[in-house]
This record gives sequence, C-alpha cells and structure tokens, in this order.
Amino acid sequence: MLELDAKLAEQLRFIQEIDKIKGILRQTVILDGSRRENDAEHSWHLATMAMILEEHANEAVNLTRVIKMVLIHDLVEIDAGDTFAYDEVGAVDKTERERKAADRIFALLPEDQATEIDALWTEFEARDTPESRYAAALDRFQPLMHNYLTEGIAWTKYGIRKAQVIARNQHIAEGSSALWEYAKVMIDESVARGYLAP
Amino acid sequence: MLELDAKLAEQLRFIQEIDKIKGILRQTVILDGSRRENDAEHSWHLATMAMILEEHANEAVNLTRVIKMVLIHDLVEIDAGDTFAYDEVGAVDKTERERKAADRIFALLPEDQATEIDALWTEFEARDTPESRYAAALDRFQPLMHNYLTEGIAWTKYGIRKAQVIARNQHIAEGSSALWEYAKVMIDESVARGYLAP
Repeated sequence: MLELDAKLAEQLRFIQEIDKIKGILRQTVILDGSRRENDAEHSWHLATMAMILEEHANEAVNLTRVIKMVLIHDLVEIDAGDTFAYDEVGAVDKTERERKAADRIFALLPEDQATEIDALWTEFEARDTPESRYAAALDRFQPLMHNYLTEGIAWTKYGIRKAQVIARNQHIAEGSSALWEYAKVMIDESVARGYLAP
Repeated sequence: MLELDAKLAEQLRFIQEIDKIKGILRQTVILDGSRRENDAEHSWHLATMAMILEEHANEAVNLTRVIKMVLIHDLVEIDAGDTFAYDEVGAVDKTERERKAADRIFALLPEDQATEIDALWTEFEARDTPESRYAAALDRFQPLMHNYLTEGIAWTKYGIRKAQVIARNQHIAEGSSALWEYAKVMIDESVARGYLAP
C-alpha cells in the first residue's frame, strides 16, 4: 500500500487490529438465545445505552467521554481474552494480562492518541470519576439484563448463585441508582423463576 | 416486571429491541475472513473510527453527534433488512421500507428521544451537514477497507466492477478527502490483484 498519509496509515493499522474483538466471545448470549455475544456487539450496545440512559446516571457526565470509554473498554481482550465474571482463577492474573495487552494494542496508535485511549481505559477500570462509574454500571447492567431475558442461560450453565450476582454487580448503584433498583428486581425474579440459584 | 420507573422501562424496551441488529448480516466479512459481519459490529467499528479519524474530516465536526449517528444509522434494518450496496432491485423501495421501520422502532422511545434519534438518522441519510458527510464517509470506507483486506470476498462473489465501487463510494471525498485518497489506492490495488473486476 502506497502510504499517502503516514499518520492515517498508522491509525488504520489500529482500526484493522481491533477488528479482532468481533471474534472475542463472552458468556452472555444475545437476546434471541441463539449464540454467545462478542465484544464488538457488547460495546456497541453499551455505547447506545450510554446515550439513551444518560439521565439515569447518578452524577452529570460528559457523554462523549463515557461513549469513548465503552467503545474501547474491551480492546485488551484481543490479547487477554474474556475473563468470565465469576471465574475466580482467571481473575488472579487478569490485571497483569490486560495491562500487557493495553501496552501492545494502544501503542499501534500515534502517541497522543495512544495516551488518550490508555487514560480512558485506566479511568474505566478505576471507577473513580462520574463517567467511569456510569460506564461501569452499563457494563454490568447489560449482561445482567441479557441473563434475565434469556432465562439465565449463562447463569444456569455455571451454577451461579444470587449472592455472587449481587457481589459482582452491586457497584451498578455507584453509577446509577435507577439501574441498580431495576437490576435488583431482575435478580429476585430470576431466583423466583429458577434462572439463578438462591 | 415491577415497573419501578416507567420511563426507564420504556427506554429498556427500546434497548432490548435493538439487540436484533446483532442478527442482521451484511455482505462484508470480518477481517479474518471467517464470516459475514453484522450491523452491531459494523456500527461499533464506525463509532470507534469516528473518534480515531476525526482529524481527517474535511470540516470541523461535533464528534458526539457523529458517533450517535453511526451508532443508530442501521437500526432501521431490523425491519427493512440490509440492502446490499450494489443491489439495484432492493434499492428501489429501500427509502420507503426504511422510513416505515424508523417510525416503528424509534417510537418505542420516550417522545423527546424518538425525535432526537429520528432527526439524527434523517440527517445521516441526507448528508447535508459536516457531521453526516463525515459519518457517511466512514460508513462507505469501512466496508471498502474490509473488501480490500479480505481479497475482495464480497466483490468477487457478486462480480462487482471498479466503476460500481467508484460510483457508490466517491462521496467519501465529501466527508474526508484523506480517506478518499486512501480508498482510491485500495480500489486500484484491488483491480491489480484481481479482487475487483476492471
């Protein structure tokens, strides 16, 4: 490829690399129950939710920053893979694996953009700003909603219990009390209907 | 479901409905060549490209509006289906089918949000603002890049010719001259390598 614009070529190299998240499968299934969802679909869903549900964020947020965070939050899984929410073994070295992945993948970008994306990802992981708390709430709420609406396919497969779901997801309340109230009802109904162990 | 917050419940109904675009397949394949891409993956890719390539837009843009447009631009395909770029028969009633789909799907939202999303989609289709010209350029550039990098899988399948690709994609130049310059090189190399008929 004749490189007409070296910076554009570098950016496109990144854009081509991240196509790989279309092949990173999550445990959650899509709502028709037909197959597991991948990270690109999940990230699109979160970004669209971010714009529709903005009024339910506990604090005022900069929506553009929220959307950028959710668009890029799973890119590290290209190298690190998806660690299932209730996988305690996988969780042990998750931080290290993901940090290494971020170093490789974000470095494909021109330096100023690599720095911006890394900062957004680090902020998302830390959940210490209004934007990252809201983004993280969406990231937990969406799979919970999918599990509820698909009759607990992923939960029953792994024998997940209510206490685990509460422990894993209760920080939704830090980003959106309204979403957490809704989530609690879904959790209780899931137990009542046998989608989730008590 | 106990409805704790009626407006939130209405918004979540929309968020659940749009999960269906994960099942709308496009003609373009993902970069490993393994399968066709769906609309959710495509929309995620465009939104991420919008943030990375912003400097290459011909005119200054409001990035948030661009990202919102590309996130929602294919929702009408839930009802109207994906019309292949070079399908002249399907193109005949495409506008009518998509307008009808927009009316049903966007109306699931609270009225103010339905109006906002409809306006964004209408603007995207009209390409008469800097944001919609840039968004439309990304929407044409991404499948062209995928076709080039997958050795013309979708082009050769349907015997697509260079003149058709030029006619279909040249409005990339209205949104981003830099992307169109790059696209022209990919088109010429595709012809030289036999991915695209002369």
